[in-house]
Amino acid sequence: MSLDAQMKELASRSKAAARQLTGLDTEQKNRCLHAMAQALCENKAAIGKANEQDLETARGMGLSQAMIDRLVLNEARIEAMAQGLREVAALPDPIGRVLDERERPNGLLLQKITTPIGVVVIIYESRPNVTADAAGLCFKSGNATILRGGKEAIHSNQIIAELMVQAAQACEPHFPVDAIQVVPTTDRAAIPALLSLTDEVDLCMPRGGEGLIRAVAECSKVPVIKHYKGVCHVYIHGQANAKMAIDIAINAKTQRPGVCNAMETLLVDAAIAEKILPELGEALARHKVEVRGDEVSRKWLAPLIDQGELSFKWAQEEDWGAEYLDLILALKVVANLEEAMAHINRHGSGHSDAIVTEDPASAERFMRDVDASAVYWNASTRFTDGAEFGMGAEIGISTDKVGARGPMGLDELTSYKWRCYGKGQIR
Amino acid sequence: MSLDAQMKELASRSKAAARQLTGLDTEQKNRCLHAMAQALCENKAAIGKANEQDLETARGMGLSQAMIDRLVLNEARIEAMAQGLREVAALPDPIGRVLDERERPNGLLLQKITTPIGVVVIIYESRPNVTADAAGLCFKSGNATILRGGKEAIHSNQIIAELMVQAAQACEPHFPVDAIQVVPTTDRAAIPALLSLTDEVDLCMPRGGEGLIRAVAECSKVPVIKHYKGVCHVYIHGQANAKMAIDIAINAKTQRPGVCNAMETLLVDAAIAEKILPELGEALARHKVEVRGDEVSRKWLAPLIDQGELSFKWAQEEDWGAEYLDLILALKVVANLEEAMAHINRHGSGHSDAIVTEDPASAERFMRDVDASAVYWNASTRFTDGAEFGMGAEIGISTDKVGARGPMGLDELTSYKWRCYGKGQIR
Repeated sequence: MSLDAQMKELASRSKAAARQLTGLDTEQKNRCLHAMAQALCENKAAIGKANEQDLETARGMGLSQAMIDRLVLNEARIEAMAQGLREVAALPDPIGRVLDERERPNGLLLQKITTPIGVVVIIYESRPNVTADAAGLCFKSGNATILRGGKEAIHSNQIIAELMVQAAQACEPHFPVDAIQVVPTTDRAAIPALLSLTDEVDLCMPRGGEGLIRAVAECSKVPVIKHYKGVCHVYIHGQANAKMAIDIAINAKTQRPGVCNAMETLLVDAAIAEKILPELGEALARHKVEVRGDEVSRKWLAPLIDQGELSFKWAQEEDWGAEYLDLILALKVVANLEEAMAHINRHGSGHSDAIVTEDPASAERFMRDVDASAVYWNASTRFTDGAEFGMGAEIGISTDKVGARGPMGLDELTSYKWRCYGKGQIR
Repeated sequence: MSLDAQMKELASRSKAAARQLTGLDTEQKNRCLHAMAQALCENKAAIGKANEQDLETARGMGLSQAMIDRLVLNEARIEAMAQGLREVAALPDPIGRVLDERERPNGLLLQKITTPIGVVVIIYESRPNVTADAAGLCFKSGNATILRGGKEAIHSNQIIAELMVQAAQACEPHFPVDAIQVVPTTDRAAIPALLSLTDEVDLCMPRGGEGLIRAVAECSKVPVIKHYKGVCHVYIHGQANAKMAIDIAINAKTQRPGVCNAMETLLVDAAIAEKILPELGEALARHKVEVRGDEVSRKWLAPLIDQGELSFKWAQEEDWGAEYLDLILALKVVANLEEAMAHINRHGSGHSDAIVTEDPASAERFMRDVDASAVYWNASTRFTDGAEFGMGAEIGISTDKVGARGPMGLDELTSYKWRCYGKGQIR
């Protein structure tokens, strides 16, 4: 069978499974999720063995130690996957929720009601725990999942999916075995083949580095929900509380610099630069943050730089918009709110941006006019996250504006339909 | 300037205009819409002149009379466009609506709030009134519009857009003139060029025949919301009220056969076929509907067919899934609810499907498991329409499952963002 035919067949089976999933009620789905969790815990040895096979290949491929670390499935990580599935079981069912209800003058009753999306393709790299997390969230929201992890993790991904499917079917005979499938080939051409199947596949969510996501978006004929990167800004307004501003900036930059909601660029209003930058510079120096700054910011950081306490380079044009994912900070002094917003809207990634100010009017302007999935007033950008937003679990973060935006939990894995109840109405 | 550069420049101006649109409040937007309406009414002669230029070209191109009819802008149609804009002004502002609000344990207050999508490209054919309708709806929802109509209507489209922009700016100096733009070239290559600009364009909505929509979806790198066609079904269940079933079937097929929510295929349950088909056949014959049926349906229609009262052909495989947009009906007798749903999910277009039954359990199964943007119990499929749904105005109908589904009004032209209000929270 050609690769195209193989993908078509795989996707058709997913589509059929998606239709059957609408027949499982909440209790049945939750029972399946608990059975899946238990199966993972009871089969740690088998998972470990499959994972060891992947690790051996990965070492042979010369993957970096960081990549290999992410690939490892030890007991704790398997327990964490299982716990994740139990937590998804505990969340409310996102399907069948009435979003809107209206009775028309002719007596027709309309209900706008959440439905599964259908068939969701997840494309990801390295970390095999995504297999359980994504499949669990998609299953709870009534979607069939097609999983395509990295080739370095295929044995781990396959055994996780198999255990989940077997456990679910053993506990619930109506569970459709094709509801969770792993693409059985590591051929790269499988991705464009799968993402050309607009009749079968409803959505693709790539998770990983910008290169992977761009490649997926470029080749896909089905809708893609994604974020390329997180170039998050904090803007310290002229009327900011200085201590709060420093705390937020340091937290947003240093608490976990490798994640997409960490700050990459700090904008400081000229009205407060002299007051705040020396103290902020000390805090940055303590946290070993390297600054890529402009002329004005250098001026107020000069003593620290000259004493060799703070590492400073001149910012280049490419520093605006750079995603360092590291203890590096682009720093610019801006004339006012307008310049700050223009800078963010031009160089930002539409992920998360914050203003620190005591002035409500400036905050409201910022919150309204900065075009990002999450905008903050006096809080760290680090909160853009499904768990922090109270969604319970997160399948990804979107910077798109069609479909879900921001952190995506169960509700964001749904579509809707209009149910129309009549008594014989005609036009 | 190359076409690519020209489109990039056009789209960049739209993006800048979209940013400025967030600064207009509801009252300002409504004043602009009224000014636009008035300008159209006051410039009927100029619009008529531009339209006459298009009509001349169209006649020269040998367009069909139906196409030419749709192109005509007479006084009544110009008044209707203006009235449409006034009605949009009267609708509630869809922007700034709080969709969700939650306070987190750390005191962070989250508001999920509607925002404009940004830059919306509308691609359409022939009818120049779409220019005013689409631009008006997009403007009210804070979006910048790039309009690309058919080349046969370019002068009409251009003058409508120009009058709207001039009127809005005269009444509201903050109105950004690039908020409504008509693609200034009729070059076909402009469409893929425009739809590759993922940094500037947020959404494309093609309106027209299936060929146009497929071509747009095929070339677009930006999200597309669309429906290819409307292959709507009515399923007469074994426990249907026969009179209601016949009324709904005849209405869905004949009241306006050329539209996307008209029925194309009628499924009749075997349990009721003998009882209902002879009378239904008479009604179809009275409405001059040609039937493409299967063996069982022919059996119960035989007297009418044999007497030459009802036109009948054997249904071919391609009749299931055909969009006739005409007084032609595909007709099949199905064994039960399961077969009806399987047929619809396989051959339907996910637009609008109805069940006629007195049995609530069967109706609920149908409403849950038929995968369509609108599902009906005891009502005609003809109600899938923005006005009929109480949306006030409609920019299109979507059969997609990411973003809006079903009729799209102002609310469906929005995205959302999370506004997060803190007091210095850090992680």
